[in-house]
Amino acid sequence: MTAETHLRRPGRPRSERAEKAIIEATLDLLAEEPGVAGVSIEAVAARAGVGKTTIYRRWPNKEALIIDALASLKAPLPEVEGLSVRADLIALGQAMVGEYNSKHSRCMWNVMGGAEKHPQLLEQFEAQVMRPRKEVFRRVLAGGIERGELRDDLDLDVARFLLIGALTLRGRSMSDIPPLAEDFVEKVVDTLLFGLAPR
Amino acid sequence: MTAETHLRRPGRPRSERAEKAIIEATLDLLAEEPGVAGVSIEAVAARAGVGKTTIYRRWPNKEALIIDALASLKAPLPEVEGLSVRADLIALGQAMVGEYNSKHSRCMWNVMGGAEKHPQLLEQFEAQVMRPRKEVFRRVLAGGIERGELRDDLDLDVARFLLIGALTLRGRSMSDIPPLAEDFVEKVVDTLLFGLAPR
Repeated sequence: MTAETHLRRPGRPRSERAEKAIIEATLDLLAEEPGVAGVSIEAVAARAGVGKTTIYRRWPNKEALIIDALASLKAPLPEVEGLSVRADLIALGQAMVGEYNSKHSRCMWNVMGGAEKHPQLLEQFEAQVMRPRKEVFRRVLAGGIERGELRDDLDLDVARFLLIGALTLRGRSMSDIPPLAEDFVEKVVDTLLFGLAPR
Repeated sequence: MTAETHLRRPGRPRSERAEKAIIEATLDLLAEEPGVAGVSIEAVAARAGVGKTTIYRRWPNKEALIIDALASLKAPLPEVEGLSVRADLIALGQAMVGEYNSKHSRCMWNVMGGAEKHPQLLEQFEAQVMRPRKEVFRRVLAGGIERGELRDDLDLDVARFLLIGALTLRGRSMSDIPPLAEDFVEKVVDTLLFGLAPR
């Protein structure tokens, strides 16, 4: 058994506590103004109250740690039923907006803002975290077309940009705007399904 | 005549060149990783090759300079005709996506990421630059409802979030994705107008 699988085995509360503290410390640092440049294994170790070797046993470098920390901001998307595209999109949308808060936004913006200095970081985040999520939305939309609930000439990417764009833009705005109305996601999905033009 | 109006009087090429160099230097610094924290009157003066007093004659502090620099990233929105909501939205959308490039994105992300440390900066940017732009979109949508081109039960904010969200999300993505298709804005507007569900 390697050190890695040993550490990740469930039911080891001390390692789990350390891992949680390390992830939280990474997010705290990422949310601060220097962004990725402010994150180092040393700084994370100091903030989490663990030794550097504890971190290196689990993560080979700071990029891998940052990707896991960013991934931890993402709620697992719910299993979608595939019964109605409207119900599926609302369920996915609710999970998405539920994960937004100002720390989440600041971490993401700081990583995006420094992207040209850390192109591999963003690429890996895209491949490991974002692409599988995009696929879920695409699958739900494609299922809706198959069942005749959606127009069969639909451009899936355009449809996805409209939905995710609205949720992201509103959900990630700064804290001075009023909290999301309870029916916001439902309104977004219905407005998108039925269009702006009169029927 | 005050120093300010003197400087801003048209037809003074030397002042204009200095002003342009100052704005560009501010954007260059903002686009780098420390974001707002990396911008100081000293650093801008050094990068633009002007004296600090040249900057202070025009801007009282670094926040005012940053807001003008960010505003310079925004294309002026075209006069909309009010003849067809579809044509108006496409014209506005084209202007919007035309202003996106990776420097624009990095500046905006860096400012947003540091927002909690500079709340007034973001508030003033919102009030001076973003709010008037949002009003243009709201006016076009409201005109569409008045003329019966759009459903009269439409939530204008939800409709705006869908449109702007899609354009922002796609337009501001990093440079490794393919360039925008020429008909992207048109497709977004039509998908939104006619909805995803079959008619």
